Amino acid sequence: MRVVANPHQAEHCPEFEYFRGRKVPCFEMPSRAEFVQQALAGAGYRIEAPESFPDEVLYAVHSRRYVDFLRGAWAEWQGSGNEGDAFASVWPIRGMRVDRTPQNFAARLGMFSFDTGTPLCAGTWQAARAGADCAATAASWLSAGESSAFVLTRPPGHHAGPEFFGGYCFLNNAAIAAQALRERGAARVAVLDVDFHHGNGTQEIFYQRGDVLYASIHGDPATEYPFFLGHGDETGAGAGFGCNLNLPLPAGSSTANWFAALEVALRRIAEFGAEALVVSLGLDAAEVDPISKFKLQTADFTQLGRRLRAAGLPTLFVLEGGYAVAAIGENARASVEGFEAG
Amino acid sequence: MRVVANPHQAEHCPEFEYFRGRKVPCFEMPSRAEFVQQALAGAGYRIEAPESFPDEVLYAVHSRRYVDFLRGAWAEWQGSGNEGDAFASVWPIRGMRVDRTPQNFAARLGMFSFDTGTPLCAGTWQAARAGADCAATAASWLSAGESSAFVLTRPPGHHAGPEFFGGYCFLNNAAIAAQALRERGAARVAVLDVDFHHGNGTQEIFYQRGDVLYASIHGDPATEYPFFLGHGDETGAGAGFGCNLNLPLPAGSSTANWFAALEVALRRIAEFGAEALVVSLGLDAAEVDPISKFKLQTADFTQLGRRLRAAGLPTLFVLEGGYAVAAIGENARASVEGFEAG
Repeated sequence: MRVVANPHQAEHCPEFEYFRGRKVPCFEMPSRAEFVQQALAGAGYRIEAPESFPDEVLYAVHSRRYVDFLRGAWAEWQGSGNEGDAFASVWPIRGMRVDRTPQNFAARLGMFSFDTGTPLCAGTWQAARAGADCAATAASWLSAGESSAFVLTRPPGHHAGPEFFGGYCFLNNAAIAAQALRERGAARVAVLDVDFHHGNGTQEIFYQRGDVLYASIHGDPATEYPFFLGHGDETGAGAGFGCNLNLPLPAGSSTANWFAALEVALRRIAEFGAEALVVSLGLDAAEVDPISKFKLQTADFTQLGRRLRAAGLPTLFVLEGGYAVAAIGENARASVEGFEAG
Repeated sequence: MRVVANPHQAEHCPEFEYFRGRKVPCFEMPSRAEFVQQALAGAGYRIEAPESFPDEVLYAVHSRRYVDFLRGAWAEWQGSGNEGDAFASVWPIRGMRVDRTPQNFAARLGMFSFDTGTPLCAGTWQAARAGADCAATAASWLSAGESSAFVLTRPPGHHAGPEFFGGYCFLNNAAIAAQALRERGAARVAVLDVDFHHGNGTQEIFYQRGDVLYASIHGDPATEYPFFLGHGDETGAGAGFGCNLNLPLPAGSSTANWFAALEVALRRIAEFGAEALVVSLGLDAAEVDPISKFKLQTADFTQLGRRLRAAGLPTLFVLEGGYAVAAIGENARASVEGFEAG
């Protein structure tokens, strides 16, 4: 398996996030990627640098005004005399308009986001943009015949939607990869999201499309972040009707139930006729994760990898969440080695 | 003019708000109402206590699940082991669902709000609920033949929508008053909002109704809070088509332009055939206001009162914003005395 790693990941390094009105240290930190890189390098994988791709790979899944905003956000924030990382204070909930882009910077920051857990800092754009290059690079490898690839990047991507960031995510790496695979010849692509948290951004990007299936196993949004999406009755719309499969499980679900859900997802992916598979590899389904509530052990990630290999598709792993930093290296390695061992 | 004041207003007294990720002192504070009360009492007005009204006055303009949430929010917040005032961390922006109410408290806090400037604290419900009683009390006076009344309350109300709080507002006092006037016999009611900030909550509550006209003069939402509503092309929908009039003015607009907009609004109110007028009296159109950008002087508030009196309608004033605390007493008094002098 070829591994592409984001050389700029550590440049996204916010100081703190807000949780229920309190400053808390960021869960999503550079050491996450470092642990994964050490684990994969230690297992003998060569860590490759990404190629550069034009911004069109972003525009294919994000709106142009959103990408333009992100690119210039830090300079604007600083130019307005603000100090520290950028946070919004007001968000356009239901009934409010987003068809007009406000001039006010903080208003745009709110318009293009949905939480206070995702500060934008000096290096956010560089890190997120290089992550998108990693995703596109891995997709190009698969399209050229490689059977599998691993995108080792942060910040993660699956909560980032057509034009919003949140949940530590800015650019949707999995969606960028899936879209690149489509454009390079795969008629149908499946995204399987095994992060503990529902990938609301990925779902929303592909919700009305019949050529990309989104399937997700995650904590029930009634009690788990991101709360406002991820229910079982979200099955796609328009041309995408039937091409969205949410498998929410109660917090605390057994690993047996988790693997049963995986079987349901893989059956649907097979029926769909996917020609390539993108795996949003959140490692926070692990029992050791500090903010998640499933119970997978390292051996279960090996089993996950093995089971994914059995699906028989060109497979692209994208690192998403996982906040037990020391454990995510080991669990990423287990997933990859399980896949390789088949 | 009879004046009803909220005896519980000071119980809503949050410690701080968040502005762009920084803790700042609350602009919306108990002394605001105290200054207005002193000024009106000093001018010889008797300050009366509200009657108690059943929760149906709230349900007439807010959803039941929202009111139920607000009533129990502080107990839930404390019961979950949180300390300090309650803040949300995630909001349901476009594409997200609000048809299901999450079990998670913080998720509900986000679902029913839209900013980080509006902390919910121990006495929020008591203060907001008593403010609604004040609004209903004043409406009952007008319905019984009184020609004018003043609702002296805080927290303010005009940013609170059918089921969300924000912009320092929890229950929409002006909407509650307008609705009570309707139910007590006025066939058509107009709400005139002169707060510097657009009353997005009031607009949204009545947007599809033809029996309540909402007219507002406010800072252009392209640059001013609440940013995502308040444009001139929002004219109402369905039965309410044509019954919403937004008159946004650029920040820094001259007082002459402000009064020209007032004439436009009053003409529309006359054409509409309103039988009663509710004035959302934000005093932040004053030049001295620390967070607003119009230029009214105290004499201009006298002129505003005079001009409103000339409209010849039973008139109910509701205190909204205004953060130059020492000045808002004087400007409230000027508005009232201008009205009384006619």
